Amino acid sequence: MTIIKISDKIRLASKHSPDHRTVVEVGPHRVGGEQVVVIAGPCSVESRDQLIETARIAKEAGCHMLRGGAFKPRTLPYSFQGLGEEGLKILAEAREETRLPVVTEVLAPSDVELVESYADVLQIGARNMQNYPLLRRVGSSEKPVLLKRGMAATMEEWLGCAEYILNEGNQRVILCERGVRGFSKVTRNTLDVSAVPMIHQSSHLPVVIDPSHGTGVRSLVAPMALAGVAAGADGVMVEVHPRPEEALSDGDQSLRPPELTELMNQIRKVANAVGRSV
Amino acid sequence: MTIIKISDKIRLASKHSPDHRTVVEVGPHRVGGEQVVVIAGPCSVESRDQLIETARIAKEAGCHMLRGGAFKPRTLPYSFQGLGEEGLKILAEAREETRLPVVTEVLAPSDVELVESYADVLQIGARNMQNYPLLRRVGSSEKPVLLKRGMAATMEEWLGCAEYILNEGNQRVILCERGVRGFSKVTRNTLDVSAVPMIHQSSHLPVVIDPSHGTGVRSLVAPMALAGVAAGADGVMVEVHPRPEEALSDGDQSLRPPELTELMNQIRKVANAVGRSV
Amino acid sequence: MTIIKISDKIRLASKHSPDHRTVVEVGPHRVGGEQVVVIAGPCSVESRDQLIETARIAKEAGCHMLRGGAFKPRTLPYSFQGLGEEGLKILAEAREETRLPVVTEVLAPSDVELVESYADVLQIGARNMQNYPLLRRVGSSEKPVLLKRGMAATMEEWLGCAEYILNEGNQRVILCERGVRGFSKVTRNTLDVSAVPMIHQSSHLPVVIDPSHGTGVRSLVAPMALAGVAAGADGVMVEVHPRPEEALSDGDQSLRPPELTELMNQIRKVANAVGRSV
Amino acid sequence: MTIIKISDKIRLASKHSPDHRTVVEVGPHRVGGEQVVVIAGPCSVESRDQLIETARIAKEAGCHMLRGGAFKPRTLPYSFQGLGEEGLKILAEAREETRLPVVTEVLAPSDVELVESYADVLQIGARNMQNYPLLRRVGSSEKPVLLKRGMAATMEEWLGCAEYILNEGNQRVILCERGVRGFSKVTRNTLDVSAVPMIHQSSHLPVVIDPSHGTGVRSLVAPMALAGVAAGADGVMVEVHPRPEEALSDGDQSLRPPELTELMNQIRKVANAVGRSV
Repeated sequence: MTIIKISDKIRLASKHSPDHRTVVEVGPHRVGGEQVVVIAGPCSVESRDQLIETARIAKEAGCHMLRGGAFKPRTLPYSFQGLGEEGLKILAEAREETRLPVVTEVLAPSDVELVESYADVLQIGARNMQNYPLLRRVGSSEKPVLLKRGMAATMEEWLGCAEYILNEGNQRVILCERGVRGFSKVTRNTLDVSAVPMIHQSSHLPVVIDPSHGTGVRSLVAPMALAGVAAGADGVMVEVHPRPEEALSDGDQSLRPPELTELMNQIRKVANAVGRSV
Repeated sequence: MTIIKISDKIRLASKHSPDHRTVVEVGPHRVGGEQVVVIAGPCSVESRDQLIETARIAKEAGCHMLRGGAFKPRTLPYSFQGLGEEGLKILAEAREETRLPVVTEVLAPSDVELVESYADVLQIGARNMQNYPLLRRVGSSEKPVLLKRGMAATMEEWLGCAEYILNEGNQRVILCERGVRGFSKVTRNTLDVSAVPMIHQSSHLPVVIDPSHGTGVRSLVAPMALAGVAAGADGVMVEVHPRPEEALSDGDQSLRPPELTELMNQIRKVANAVGRSV
Repeated sequence: MTIIKISDKIRLASKHSPDHRTVVEVGPHRVGGEQVVVIAGPCSVESRDQLIETARIAKEAGCHMLRGGAFKPRTLPYSFQGLGEEGLKILAEAREETRLPVVTEVLAPSDVELVESYADVLQIGARNMQNYPLLRRVGSSEKPVLLKRGMAATMEEWLGCAEYILNEGNQRVILCERGVRGFSKVTRNTLDVSAVPMIHQSSHLPVVIDPSHGTGVRSLVAPMALAGVAAGADGVMVEVHPRPEEALSDGDQSLRPPELTELMNQIRKVANAVGRSV
Repeated sequence: MTIIKISDKIRLASKHSPDHRTVVEVGPHRVGGEQVVVIAGPCSVESRDQLIETARIAKEAGCHMLRGGAFKPRTLPYSFQGLGEEGLKILAEAREETRLPVVTEVLAPSDVELVESYADVLQIGARNMQNYPLLRRVGSSEKPVLLKRGMAATMEEWLGCAEYILNEGNQRVILCERGVRGFSKVTRNTLDVSAVPMIHQSSHLPVVIDPSHGTGVRSLVAPMALAGVAAGADGVMVEVHPRPEEALSDGDQSLRPPELTELMNQIRKVANAVGRSV
């Protein structure tokens, strides 16, 4: 595989040879290996019932991990901000039942200890990509970190953030492309699928794709998930909700349960076509 | 399939029912049908030898059409501007030998008569997407038109341009996503793969993807071609050159012959995975 | 003044010494000299009455030139496309009465002869910035050319287009910044005021600013016009309409007559503050 | 003055009547009043000598506040990260001598107590615009907050962040436009001067402009500072360094001392032209 050199200063996140790849183990799953990992769940944990129901749907559809926000970064202070620790407990209960490892966001260094006591993967959201004290803190965690790309981040800036985490000793970093800000009037963001091969050719870290935030439009989620897998993504992260019209956040981009099942079948076929499994 | 409504004023290019699809026939090929069509060739027709050699490579690799510019829109007046009619004659000769229909760009209304006498498909480049006199003129041509998206065009603006062509009576319009201007420092443009499903959900016209201009980086062409196909593109347009390092334009993004062959195999697999053939 | 080198290949449009400046004479006015030139008028020539009334308003307010489109590039074929030659005749009549030189757009090489027989300045619109046959044709005109920046054009691309005109022998090129495509949800475009000093530090050509298209919002036109003048713009181009709510195009961004008068007073003060006159 | 409605949900930061304006007092200065406030200083506090020398330069030039980073958010962990508390002490010493109030950035909620014990204004940087725990924390501070716009933030997102601070009880918020990410190859960012009148027409909060980060190019700082003032900015924030070529960060965009003096003269003239003083 070609090597694209982003910057000499990206010491730890850069790829050193064509075959240099890091596999991040999460429970029984290996992100960055042969398998394409699917992470599904609601935008926010809204209630025990909603989350447990969604986790069962994800499990049944064959997904590998469960996502759900307990601490939510919202544009306005008056919007639903997440259930906090109660949400974390519900996520842990869902894991107990389904065996799906849990990915959830952490917003502040002072919350890391709490979140890592429940979560399997700590998510750093796009808005916090360059929150360096937070990156340093999760860099000393024993949990893997899923680092979302900022809305207007270059490859150098994104890998520079991974570098902060790696430099603290945590080698288990998964990158996540979730769309960059563009001028589209139809989509919420512009999903930069080319970030997937750019990361693979410049870094040894695995990269997953989030077509839910990347488009903001339900009917575009499946085709863009498949695009990501075809481009080599190591995983897909999608939002699903039992009743999207009732969702407290991001309902417009959440798949309905049967759509998730259908998407899993499609992902499987495309993954096979590019030499991967699901 | 979901219908996304771009604007009530897009009367002719809009999709009127979920199954509303237009198939554009080009020689024996049907763009917008079950087959994923691959269009390959050099950026510019540089010489008879170069073009004929490239056409044979494209033919042998299993591509369906030949691309090559005889009239080149270049950033500076001092750059190679194309061979003009001589280039068109060479393209016609290559078609004669390989049976590959020819796609080539036309820059001015006054050149349309000349270009349509040689070409099978008239290409309108990104810089001319909103050159309305040119759109009107090709709208009265009997040849199909491949309309590239402008560098910063919204869906409404792009479909509005298709509307100009359709409104003149030419119903054979193929759209081509070739990347929008972004802030990337690695790629030349940001290939907006989501344009593929957005077009399919809002318009009945077929859409192909151009990962060569969309990335500007050879090693990114194949993964992005596959991404486009997985997202539902009706075709792929790629640049190939027997010796990219000697190309008079776009050498950095041109595939080498063996890379084209390999890409065709990959496209076939991904096309099959999404229920298409090549 | 500092020199910013955009590209060695920009031979004719580049600045060769700190004091290298071109002044383009239009009637009694000198664009690029000590004076800040104000060009005002409606988006489109809609009728004789509307245009003559607007020309008188512009004259009375102290503006130096009259703008108005007779050939209009519109997003959709069903929108008002301009009055064509009739519009040119009306513009010429308005000039006759007010002595204001006329700036008007030309869309196709084949229209240049007609348009230059009426106009004092040929405008190349943003959509046609890279319409090279058109640039070549106006490059052999004896009339000055106002070259608008494309919606996503870099400095190199923009100056490359000026180069096409200069290279044909027409040395009278005025550049016009009119906003680039951005992600704003309030404004129509993002007016890149920094283009003014970038052009002045890299090129000898004069540059004017168009805050009407640059913002698309009436209440933002005046502050952005002043911003442009403070940054060194050699002129301001604004849309004005006697009754904006009745305008056939761009009513939302057109100033009302008293706003134009007020703006002229403000421009005068800011121009004086930066050592210019109006 | 026109009112632009951004969102009904922006309750506290929105303008309620044309004359609704908030003035933020910082020491003897009133940001948002008749005066245009100039904040100058180095990107980073590098040493006692460098900072004291720069503070004297700023004072002598007639600037009103001193800026300087003690905690620096850097793209890579290996870059100079600021002097921390030592830097804050140096800033306080400079204030002691020059009477210039101090503006300095805070990166983490846990640092706010320390930083507010030294600073007169707490700066939230562009990377942390949506760091909501940090916004909440400074929202309960007694010090004014200078909130920089994120690199790809819409008006709604930016005002939403101000809302977080206001909602905690801190009414002293100053907004700062510092450039958004664009496609320019000459400048580091695209300074969105139109943000100034957009803020003034939608919010009662004062807004200052930062042409140093907004352009990243020394020769563009002065014209863009003047553009901001002409557009109505309540202040200008510029980087200055006694010897920019030796700066540990942002040397290319730092003014030299005589350039600062000259800029102050120019700002004074433009401020007067728009009915303000310096």
